[in-house]
Formats: sequence, structure tokens, C-alpha cells
Amino acid sequence: MRAVDVIEKKRDGEELTKEEIEFFVRGFTNGEIPDYQAAAWAMAVVFQGMTPQETTDLTMAIARSGETIDLSEAVPVAVDKHSTGGVGDKTTLVVGPIVAACGLPVGKISGRGLGFSGGTLDKFESIPGFRTNLSRTEFLEQLRSVGLVVSGQTADLAPADGKLYALRDVTGTVPSTPLIASSIMSKKIAAGAQAIVLDVKVGEGAFMKTIQDARELATLMVSIAHRAGRRAIALLSDMNQPLGEAVGNALEVVEAIHTLEGDGPVDFREHCLVVAGHMLTLGRVVEDENVGHRKAEEKLIGGQAWGKFKEFVSAQGGDVRYVLTPELLPSAPLTEVVLSPQSGYISQVNARIVGETSVLLGAGRAKKGDSIDPAVGIVIHIKVGNKVETGQPLFTLHLRNTSQLEQVREYVLSAIRWSEKTVDPLPLFYEVIK
Amino acid sequence: MRAVDVIEKKRDGEELTKEEIEFFVRGFTNGEIPDYQAAAWAMAVVFQGMTPQETTDLTMAIARSGETIDLSEAVPVAVDKHSTGGVGDKTTLVVGPIVAACGLPVGKISGRGLGFSGGTLDKFESIPGFRTNLSRTEFLEQLRSVGLVVSGQTADLAPADGKLYALRDVTGTVPSTPLIASSIMSKKIAAGAQAIVLDVKVGEGAFMKTIQDARELATLMVSIAHRAGRRAIALLSDMNQPLGEAVGNALEVVEAIHTLEGDGPVDFREHCLVVAGHMLTLGRVVEDENVGHRKAEEKLIGGQAWGKFKEFVSAQGGDVRYVLTPELLPSAPLTEVVLSPQSGYISQVNARIVGETSVLLGAGRAKKGDSIDPAVGIVIHIKVGNKVETGQPLFTLHLRNTSQLEQVREYVLSAIRWSEKTVDPLPLFYEVIK
Repeated sequence: MRAVDVIEKKRDGEELTKEEIEFFVRGFTNGEIPDYQAAAWAMAVVFQGMTPQETTDLTMAIARSGETIDLSEAVPVAVDKHSTGGVGDKTTLVVGPIVAACGLPVGKISGRGLGFSGGTLDKFESIPGFRTNLSRTEFLEQLRSVGLVVSGQTADLAPADGKLYALRDVTGTVPSTPLIASSIMSKKIAAGAQAIVLDVKVGEGAFMKTIQDARELATLMVSIAHRAGRRAIALLSDMNQPLGEAVGNALEVVEAIHTLEGDGPVDFREHCLVVAGHMLTLGRVVEDENVGHRKAEEKLIGGQAWGKFKEFVSAQGGDVRYVLTPELLPSAPLTEVVLSPQSGYISQVNARIVGETSVLLGAGRAKKGDSIDPAVGIVIHIKVGNKVETGQPLFTLHLRNTSQLEQVREYVLSAIRWSEKTVDPLPLFYEVIK
Repeated sequence: MRAVDVIEKKRDGEELTKEEIEFFVRGFTNGEIPDYQAAAWAMAVVFQGMTPQETTDLTMAIARSGETIDLSEAVPVAVDKHSTGGVGDKTTLVVGPIVAACGLPVGKISGRGLGFSGGTLDKFESIPGFRTNLSRTEFLEQLRSVGLVVSGQTADLAPADGKLYALRDVTGTVPSTPLIASSIMSKKIAAGAQAIVLDVKVGEGAFMKTIQDARELATLMVSIAHRAGRRAIALLSDMNQPLGEAVGNALEVVEAIHTLEGDGPVDFREHCLVVAGHMLTLGRVVEDENVGHRKAEEKLIGGQAWGKFKEFVSAQGGDVRYVLTPELLPSAPLTEVVLSPQSGYISQVNARIVGETSVLLGAGRAKKGDSIDPAVGIVIHIKVGNKVETGQPLFTLHLRNTSQLEQVREYVLSAIRWSEKTVDPLPLFYEVIK
């Protein structure tokens, strides 16, 4: 078999066999197939696409390019969740403890933020001492003993994905649904959960701008999971406006703690309960998501989720005093309230612009490897559909210093669009793909 | 400017600017843009194409990636011809001397054979002593003194083309009309002739299988030449069956000598006279191709072309005794006549299969750098439209040994298709693109 023949076959729109895909991924991973052939192949995939079977074969080949974890070594059934990335998405911090408190173990490999999208690991690392580089043994042991563990990806987990993504990033081959789906699912499958809830974000602050694109990606990922023998569902959830109120690492941890204590923004709380309900259903703890939602709410109200969160933070090396007294968490020296320049109904709070503003403040990474400031960020006081008066607070900026303040203020205000007429609130979810 | 932005722009079907194309070619040539980005870009071009202006900008950027020659340093006007490659195509060996004998200097950079296609340099090198690695100074001096010079490409002539072609060859990005056109035309333009006749082959033994594809390539190349300030025309000529009778390096030199002596196959002789007529017209030696055809025929019949050939071979270091007595040229130890297994009308002599058979015998290269045997090859005794009786000779194989003889015989016979009814002969030319 020759790499060029595999490239030409895909270029000509034919379906690759499992053997061809495995040959290509294996050769690319071990360096026998050079980057230039992989880049040409990826561009051919951008144009010609891949069938669900090809995408599954690609996913499995990438998943098996390194170490794989089998969570059933530690617990009978473990559930994982994955979000395709958004602004203000601190869902894992809340649903993890809720689901674990219901007796369903949650083992999750998480990522870091890039661009306007935040990352779960960055948020947890606002808590002093919190470790995100657990060994495989530590991961499985904590899953068994605490029922909740979140760690970063080791180099050995699906190494072909890291290599291929780095290449796609510089060759214009990122926007391909089968390549995106196989990148996400290869890591999920290598990470070993038997049940996976996929939270596919749709809208201005998401990679998928339209419900149609999100549905295509979600359907493909669920199909891959099923072909790979895993249980999975996907939720299409709104990311036109940020989720909850806080954007910024320590600010989001504080919001998650408030939510676990029974408070927190209404939209974020409900989002978490729905996701948890689906996780519990997929883990066969409850019969359906409505029962799951009720059970999740009980554990939230009853304080068991909050208890599980503290146990989890402590197990993972985090200093629990910071969680018990969130005022101790990193906080910015300056705050600046952005007031409304007019009255009217809010028709848009562009999540992408809010996310980009938080990067400007130092909360995110413009490029991989940039350092981030856990203390800075934005609290959003309005939602789409709200009626606002002139002079009412729209945002509170948490700043390290006042340089570029006017620019930041102007930019975050550009996230807002106005209407003279009433505007319906945005839904939290659009669809469930089973 | 970033390479990834240029790739994405082309991926999205937009027209690249001259600056973007120059940036990309310059970066690729000096190694600042890595092969993997060039490969992804080339695959995007395969799918999205390029406008004539983009293709011209690409051609000029490649032409200027190294040394360029200006033939007007040596002669007022020089003409070049280029064939897109075929089987039995020894045209340069005959039209070069004819056109030079008419007083129009011919300066040509030639290539080697690859796959089933033969190469002019390989044919000339059948003549002991013949040099194909002339320096720039030698090239210009011989153009001035003899009016005819043919040499191989130096590394410094359009180096970006060599680098890009090597990459395209292994990344499935060869079949792209703008990339093919710019590859050919960049070398022609760097080689400095003011007038260029393009012989675009069409059919089974050519890269372009259909008249439509050949017309597209020819039109694009003529357009590039005009935009680059050169005179050019393109002929679409038949390559469904081999040109002339001989396929194989020394065998083709012998056929060219016979033709220059006033003999030779009728189809090949006429092909050469038509090409020469167009070269003379483009070089403004005659007013049109019909006058050019007559003038070319005069120089062939009068022996001046044959005289110019001998002068040229001698100037280029070749031993003229081998030309005067072609029996001295390398010849195969064995010949084997393949007889017709049936009677009927010949409806096909597949040039590709004949070319591949000659590669099997050792006359060509399966891959770059393979050595070739100048002595071996095939002489074809029939043309499409001929009526043949059982037992009549179809081919004479010139062999080094009898290993694989049965396989070769069977393969070359598969080039023939039969008809019970009369079949029209194939035309020599389909169209002229001006």
C-alpha cells in the first residue's frame, strides 16, 4: 500500500477501507508517512468528506495510536461528558459532582482554553494545589474511591490526534466535520468511558454556527460512538450568548460553587440539571432524563453534590479552604462596571465577542502555550430578552490594570444588539440526538 | 502575510493576488513555507482551480524562482517547441533541423522520459558523445553559431517547479490544469524563447484523455504566454496511437534520420511539417502555416535539414559516424516479430499500452532515476484503419533477452482492437489554439 494511492482515492471521492485508514494513521503517527502527505489527504477530506464508517475507522485508528484506558477496570460503568467549547461553559464543575453524588462515576479527560473558548483545566487550576496531571493509576484510583476525576490529556492518549490537529491548524484543514468528529471521539474512546454525553454548542460563540452544522456533527459523533460499542447521546445547546453570568477562570469557579450551594444563575443551573439528567439516563441510574433531572435537583438541593465537589477537590490536591471561602480565590485588583448607553430590549449578547474580550483582559490564550491570568474576566448582568434602562449595569469587567480600558469597554459593548420591540429569550437546548 | 491564510483563501474558492502567489512561491522555494503547507495548498488548487490571471502569476513566480535566460542575447528571435509527452514522439529531432535550416534559431530545454512517455534527451543520448548538460554560455553560443541547440534543464532554471512537481507527485496533486500549465510554461518562459509552439497530445497515450481537457490546458498555456509577453500557439495532436513507427530511443533516432533523409513514416513526416510550419509562422519567417509547411518540405527534400542535423549533433559532441551509419547505433541482440492472430480492420493501437510495453523491455523508466536501455523498443507495422490478414506482422520487438517474452507479446497485443467493418484513420491534429 502507498500513501499517495490513499490520497488519490480520497481526492477522487471514493470510500477508504478500514485497512487504508489504519495504514495511513499508523504511518503518520510513526513518521513513515510525512506531514506533506497527511496535509494533502486532510485537504482532500475537507472537500470530499468521509462516510460514517470511514469516520469511525479513522476515530478508532486515532484512538488506538497510543495508550487506551478501560474505566471498567475501576468501576462497573463510568460516564463522560464533552462540550465542543463555549464561553462561560463551567458545566463540568457542577454536573460532575451532581452525577457522582447520584452514584454514577464520572471520569473525564479535559482540555485547556484556546481563542475565545475557555477550558475546564484552566478553571480548576484557579484553586491552589489542584493537580490536572494525574497518572493513569491515580486517575483510576480516584474514579474508584471518589467517583469523580478530571485530568489533562497525557501525551500517550491518542497521540495521532495531537499530531494531526497541529498539522490541520496550519494547513487550513480544520473545518471538516468528519475530522472534527474523529478528533473529539478518538480521545473520548481512548479515555475509556462506556457512556458519553456530548454537549454540542451552536451559535455565535461556538465553532458550529448553525443548527444544521451542529446536528451533522452531533449525529456523526453519536454514530461513531455506537459503531465503537459505546452508549452516547448529543445535546445541541445554545452558545449565541454566554452560559451563566461569569466568564473568566476564578470567576467561573465562584459561579459553579454558588450553583452547587443551591444558588447561581437560573440558565446555568437548568443547563446543568438537563445535562446531568441525560448522563444519569445513559448510565442507567434512572429510566429517563426527566427522572434524571429530578434526581439531579435533589442532590443539588440536598447538598450532596456540593459535598462531592469538596471531596473531589481535596482528592485532586486542591486546597479546600479556597472553595469554602471563595473570596480567597484569585481576584482582580480592579473592577469596572459598563453601564448601558441606552434603553431597549437586548436582542444579542454575542458570546464570541464576550469571549474575545476576556482574552483581551488576559483570561484566555490567543495561541497555544500563552499564560493566562486566573483572576480577570467579565460578569454579564443581562440576557437576551431582558428590558434594560439607560445607565443600568451591563457588564462588570475584572481587570489587572486600566491599560486599554476604553478599547475593552467599546469592544464588549459591541457584543450587544438592541431592539425596540420585545425579544424572546434564547432556548437553552435545541435538540437531542440519540 | 501568513501561508495558512493563503491556503484558506484558495480552499474557500477565492482568487489569490499576485502578491499572495509570489509570497507563497518564494517562501516554498527558500524553505520558509514547509512542504506540508504547499501540499495542502496544491490540493486546494486541485479542487478550486485557478483563474488565468492567477495561473499566469504562479507561472511567472516559478519562472523567476531561479536563473532566467534571454535568448535575444544570442539571436534576434528564437523559437521553442514543447510537447506534453507521448509515445513515439521524436518530433524535436526532425523539426529542430528543419526550422533551423529555414534560418529561424531553435533553442530548446528538453526533458527525460518517465512512465510510458519518452523523453527527447534520452533519444539524443543514444548517439555516443552527445552532451545534454550544456552550460548557459555553451547553450547561447551554439544557438548563435548553429541555430539549433537542445539541452537538459539545469538546477537553476525554475527550481520551484522541480521542488513543487516532486511534491505533487507524492501528494496526489498532479491532475490540475493550472498546476500543469504553470509547470510547463514556467520552464518555457525561464528558458527565454520569444515564440513557443505547444504540441498538446490528446488520447490514450497522453496525459489529457479528451479533446476538451486538452483544449482547456492549451488555451490556458497560450493565455499565460500572451500575458507574459511571448508569442504562442498550441496544436492539439493525436496520441491515441503512437506517432510514427518506432518506440524506443535508438530506434526513434533511426526513424528521425530516415525522415530527415526524405524517407520515414508518412504520418510522422506530415506531423513534423505541420509543426515546423507553425514554428516558422510564429517566428515570422513566413506569413502563414501553409507557406511554412511548403518551406519546411523544401528544406527536407533539399537536404538542408539533414545537413543541419549533422552539424547540430557534431556541435553538441555527438559522434557523426553513428548518424551517417545508423546501423552503428545501439541495437538489441534479439528481435521478435508479433504476428496477427486474426484478420480484420484495426480500430485501436493503444499508445499507452505500447509505451508501457517499451518500459517493460527496458526502454523507459518506471520511476525517476531508473537507467534505460537505448537499444530496445518496438516497431509498429500497422495504423488505425489498416486492413490486416491473419499472420501479418503487427509489431517487431527489439529485445535484450527472451525473459518475460510471452508476457510482453500478450501485453503488446492487448493494445490492438479489431473491427469487422472499415475504420477511418485517425487525424494527426484536432485543433489549433491561437
